[in-house]
Amino acid sequence: MNGLMMNLPLQVSSLLVHAERHHGEQQIVSRRCEGDLHRYGYRELAQRSRQLAQALQRLGVRSGERVATLAWNGHRHLELYYAVSGSGAVLHTLNPRLHPDQLGWIVDDAEDRVLCFDLSFLPLVQAVAPRLTGVRQFVLMTDRSHMPAPDALPGLLCFEELLAAEDGDYDWPLLDEQQASSLCYTSGTTGHPKGVLYSHRSTLLHTLAAALPDALDCRARDCVLPVVPMFHVNAWGLPYIACMVGAKLVLPGPALDGASLYELFEREGVTLSAGVPTVWQGLLAHVQAQGLRFSTMRRTVIGGSACPPAMLRAFQEQFDVAVVHAWGMTEMSPIGTVSQFKHAPADADERYALQAKQGRVVFGVDMKVVDAAGRELPWDGRSSGELLVRGHWVLARYLKGEDSPLHEGWFPTGDVAHIDAEGFMQITDRAKDVIKSGGEWIGSIDLENIAVAHPQVAMAACIAARHPKWDERPLLVVVRKPGATLTRDELLAFFEGKVAKWWTPDDVLFVDAIPLGATGKMQKNKLRELYGDHLLGRPPGA
Amino acid sequence: MNGLMMNLPLQVSSLLVHAERHHGEQQIVSRRCEGDLHRYGYRELAQRSRQLAQALQRLGVRSGERVATLAWNGHRHLELYYAVSGSGAVLHTLNPRLHPDQLGWIVDDAEDRVLCFDLSFLPLVQAVAPRLTGVRQFVLMTDRSHMPAPDALPGLLCFEELLAAEDGDYDWPLLDEQQASSLCYTSGTTGHPKGVLYSHRSTLLHTLAAALPDALDCRARDCVLPVVPMFHVNAWGLPYIACMVGAKLVLPGPALDGASLYELFEREGVTLSAGVPTVWQGLLAHVQAQGLRFSTMRRTVIGGSACPPAMLRAFQEQFDVAVVHAWGMTEMSPIGTVSQFKHAPADADERYALQAKQGRVVFGVDMKVVDAAGRELPWDGRSSGELLVRGHWVLARYLKGEDSPLHEGWFPTGDVAHIDAEGFMQITDRAKDVIKSGGEWIGSIDLENIAVAHPQVAMAACIAARHPKWDERPLLVVVRKPGATLTRDELLAFFEGKVAKWWTPDDVLFVDAIPLGATGKMQKNKLRELYGDHLLGRPPGA
Repeated sequence: MNGLMMNLPLQVSSLLVHAERHHGEQQIVSRRCEGDLHRYGYRELAQRSRQLAQALQRLGVRSGERVATLAWNGHRHLELYYAVSGSGAVLHTLNPRLHPDQLGWIVDDAEDRVLCFDLSFLPLVQAVAPRLTGVRQFVLMTDRSHMPAPDALPGLLCFEELLAAEDGDYDWPLLDEQQASSLCYTSGTTGHPKGVLYSHRSTLLHTLAAALPDALDCRARDCVLPVVPMFHVNAWGLPYIACMVGAKLVLPGPALDGASLYELFEREGVTLSAGVPTVWQGLLAHVQAQGLRFSTMRRTVIGGSACPPAMLRAFQEQFDVAVVHAWGMTEMSPIGTVSQFKHAPADADERYALQAKQGRVVFGVDMKVVDAAGRELPWDGRSSGELLVRGHWVLARYLKGEDSPLHEGWFPTGDVAHIDAEGFMQITDRAKDVIKSGGEWIGSIDLENIAVAHPQVAMAACIAARHPKWDERPLLVVVRKPGATLTRDELLAFFEGKVAKWWTPDDVLFVDAIPLGATGKMQKNKLRELYGDHLLGRPPGA
Repeated sequence: MNGLMMNLPLQVSSLLVHAERHHGEQQIVSRRCEGDLHRYGYRELAQRSRQLAQALQRLGVRSGERVATLAWNGHRHLELYYAVSGSGAVLHTLNPRLHPDQLGWIVDDAEDRVLCFDLSFLPLVQAVAPRLTGVRQFVLMTDRSHMPAPDALPGLLCFEELLAAEDGDYDWPLLDEQQASSLCYTSGTTGHPKGVLYSHRSTLLHTLAAALPDALDCRARDCVLPVVPMFHVNAWGLPYIACMVGAKLVLPGPALDGASLYELFEREGVTLSAGVPTVWQGLLAHVQAQGLRFSTMRRTVIGGSACPPAMLRAFQEQFDVAVVHAWGMTEMSPIGTVSQFKHAPADADERYALQAKQGRVVFGVDMKVVDAAGRELPWDGRSSGELLVRGHWVLARYLKGEDSPLHEGWFPTGDVAHIDAEGFMQITDRAKDVIKSGGEWIGSIDLENIAVAHPQVAMAACIAARHPKWDERPLLVVVRKPGATLTRDELLAFFEGKVAKWWTPDDVLFVDAIPLGATGKMQKNKLRELYGDHLLGRPPGA
């Protein structure tokens, strides 16, 4: 016996239709590659997205075909989000920080048919274009006056000219909610990148749940600035959430340095932001150096990598900005857990201890930690094991994946974590980064957090170095702050009393820079290639 | 091309599974018919709901069959919510305030197979039982010690005994999300009541959207006390929302007087409540008379009928409690609009003017107002017409309804309303209550709001009285406060300057009481039967 309610599909275009009807005047502000600050309302976003959908149709894009983007956070990228998915095609956001070879491989693997890109990426596209086999059209996301000479890229189309040829008299098609809406590739550290194909249904359910009070807590009165790129798991869903709740949206374009971001935060009255820890380091450094304050920002979501406790404290104590620590992955659309309190913390220590955890699940996903035999571990805040997840917006299969990655219906995240009695999860390591010392596990993230809390440390990575006696031992790779004189022994002494003695790193290597991957994460696999044999031949550690 | 995410059904049992795993210790407090205050956690709710599902199975309840309840807000009723829907049967919440004849008709029409009821309703069930044709089992929701003599109702089963026979080793079945989960009848004023059959999908989508920051704004730190009955459109979804977000839940049982409610609010630390205006009148009167304060309550949701502006002000100014004005209907699961600000109001006047409106739609529903020819009217805050809605949790067809009530995919609400440029909707009348005076419409709610703002008026209804010249003219039916000496002319003078002169009621009738329907709304159709001819024979009004 079925219910007798209206059965409307969950589809991406309905977010835009809602925003146009109910938040038509709400503003979207974009810093563009052309250098200006562009400003319009959701009504104009909807109108231009319909024109763009018509233009794509005219270019011959069919339902299910992939349209790729190489673009910063900006209004034209947002129009592509809605025009491509809304019309039944699949939006494929490419990460411009990838190596051109890898980028080319991904475009071909995804069978992208149209590639739209920002001015900044013309040289990159020029380098990649000759090897692409499936792209029919290249579209530069700018107006006629910024178009390059005709020989820059043969047949290059102009985004604004395509739009100008259409009237926007277009009805969004009714879609099957299981249809694919967008595609992201994971920047895997081994093997080829793999495609994660979201559906309209998974996207809409993620949008609803991610906006909840105990998740990102978004409402019409918010002004949201996603620093996290729209090419990085759909900017954690914020371009969809903003439409759903009618929030003001500020898109920072290519200018992600501390000074540019701060100016935008203050000028536009940003209340909520989101990004990876490395971006916040630049912003914090700028604001601290200039003695500035945030006059409207009250919350910032930090995810992508574990947020160092020192950063939590700096935001809270120096700037009265609450850090909302979140965890997810490309395979999870991406939101899995958010560290929102269940009770008001008793004091600052409890507050920071809770905030340092990645948090508890949003309704719609579930998680568990299991031991090597796959048995569920207790929720005691200590028992670490591999973290498995399931839910409405969790991957079932990779694009072109022959084999299901699931274990009895659960997706193995590759993270090592524990869960406490209240359901707060804490990542202790990536499974591949954990240090296996004499049969015991040492979490590299804990050691990194201690190192970066030292006032003379700018960045620190802890890697598993091969060891003749213990198999692996922790090795610290550290970037000192400018002018710092910190020595190996001073830094190792800093660990005393903070961890068990056998967890203390065996050695410290000072380097000029730690390589960052395309999503801003430290590339510890590269460090292992460089320094993995550093301890061999040394006398056994403690 | 379909997305490749996990495809799990949206089903009611997943709310309980989530609450058990992630909020197992969170409390549910119930004032019971037996007189005591019962207290347990979501973990026990889940365990007992599984036992109850086993008991229902043992009673022979099959998938899709209806299990009816006649019960107050309490933990056993909550267990039925999850056990019945979770196991694939359909929960049918009956309104005990209906006349026994109507109740019997509804039970037969719904083909209810099991009827579970609270101690308070034994006399009612005794009166109705003999005429019921389809009910196989009657279950009294109490323990053995409170069971009546065996001859009270032949074959009567004891709820706690049914549970005690089961071990709770039960897996919730995987259901098709289109399957029916629960059933409510609308208390129509004409013709027979009609059944509204919710699906698991519509219920889950409603739950997600209703908890959003710009809707009811519910999180784990909230303590929610639904005064709105669980037999009244699923207590506006709060029993589901509380599980989803892990909020503390306080269920007041049969004691809905001001003193009992206030005691529970203070003792349990209630932060959020919800109910119809008539309930709040009792609570406000008690708190005002005793000179009390609310120490934890900060928000109260008012819906079911328009909230008089005087009540908005009293909550805000005397008690620092924000009123969240909401609108919906049984056919909408029920939430349609919530009056959450888009910007901080400039001053108190703007605040109250906005709060007096029923608000803007929650994502997932849309609305429009149309004229008599079905043409959409402008959103100018003035153009009134019939309000139509559509959305994921809006009715498509009534149970046993031969004809679709929809107009081109939209559900006609029977309310008359206007929408302003910001999307805030205000109900001006029920279509059947609007006063058609000389071809122009007069909204009865505006006139009632003015009347109840008079310090000597306890309650007021404005009805369309037949009129020899103007067809219909407004007639006020008023209950004075105890000891009040207010006269007809004094009250009519109170309208001067507040409405156009031709809107002023033609006459005032003072009565001892205004009849209330089963959901606490004034029965204006009864008043029209009694007083509709009052103006005939009088000289034409102004």
